[in-house]
Amino acid sequence: MRRRTGRRSGSPDTRGAILTAARTAFAGRGYDRASIRGIAAEAGVDPALVHHYFGTKDQLFLATLDLPINPAELIPAAVAGGIDGAGRRLVALALSVWDSPAGAAGAALLRSAMSSEWSARLLREFLVTQVLRRVFAQLGITDDPQSELRAALVASQLAGLVMTRYLLRFEPLASADPSVIAAAVGPTIQRYLTDDLDVPAPAAD
Amino acid sequence: MRRRTGRRSGSPDTRGAILTAARTAFAGRGYDRASIRGIAAEAGVDPALVHHYFGTKDQLFLATLDLPINPAELIPAAVAGGIDGAGRRLVALALSVWDSPAGAAGAALLRSAMSSEWSARLLREFLVTQVLRRVFAQLGITDDPQSELRAALVASQLAGLVMTRYLLRFEPLASADPSVIAAAVGPTIQRYLTDDLDVPAPAAD
Repeated sequence: MRRRTGRRSGSPDTRGAILTAARTAFAGRGYDRASIRGIAAEAGVDPALVHHYFGTKDQLFLATLDLPINPAELIPAAVAGGIDGAGRRLVALALSVWDSPAGAAGAALLRSAMSSEWSARLLREFLVTQVLRRVFAQLGITDDPQSELRAALVASQLAGLVMTRYLLRFEPLASADPSVIAAAVGPTIQRYLTDDLDVPAPAAD
Repeated sequence: MRRRTGRRSGSPDTRGAILTAARTAFAGRGYDRASIRGIAAEAGVDPALVHHYFGTKDQLFLATLDLPINPAELIPAAVAGGIDGAGRRLVALALSVWDSPAGAAGAALLRSAMSSEWSARLLREFLVTQVLRRVFAQLGITDDPQSELRAALVASQLAGLVMTRYLLRFEPLASADPSVIAAAVGPTIQRYLTDDLDVPAPAAD
């Protein structure tokens, strides 16, 4: 195995170098094609050091986003009740995260993604690989030919909801109890997840 | 009538002074409570000059937003077909505006509203008074006790849709034909406009 001398592994800049290389890889190549090995090479460190500092690839990705939440823990609990009512539970989960201290980090990420193609790519990769893919897998609906469209539609309503409630502060959504919003918006998410969308199926590639 | 001497009415800064005063009034007091008279006084000009430069209060408001569209013309055409299918037609209208040269102005406004409370207020006032109020009036559903919640829900889905498609460029929404999106998202807007939202009615004030 060819590797660099590790001269930077003890420096205080090592974590920063790894995060910079990781952001470049996740935004440029996408989550699936980015590798710990490639990120380590770019940062000039041993892959073991990346794992040592940041854990798994998922955890490294979350670290690049500076998001103090872990969808791998949050989503199974929200979706555990099965497909019935999953829309409402996902809305409640989104609101509980945004009402928590993590909401400020989410707002920063959303603002950044609106004005930077780079941040937009990281946010898309986060939503697809960390959130929506988990939701669809847990609900057992990954083989739906429209699952990508469904995921994007779910993202459109949830992103619009948090933007309208937390950033634009559009009343009465801004002050509404989460249970009211979950009741009103849950059926939209449910329909995007499971119902007939009344659109033509995408052509096979 | 007490008025200033009009010494600024011929200066090249007069339009700018009126726009600045108008932004302050529309964001600070809201569209309904802002007046041409108050804006003219703040700008140090005669109200007739404000009308001369900008036309009606609606037109002055649109000028402060630098939005090259006129909802007073666009919305009646989209909603003219009545309540059936209104959701789908509103989605199609939103996409046609964002696919036009006006889309760039909309993107700038949305970005600005995400990071400035000032711009967020102007955007809210625009959506409520220029877009949603017209939609609800034309559909004859202004007396619904939940009309404010319905309007905010419509805003959440339409804002999220344009953000996801045009700013985050989330596939397949970013490349989808407008007719596909109108079919997929139209029923959401329709439900927010007219269906039972399954939430408790707000307490009367």
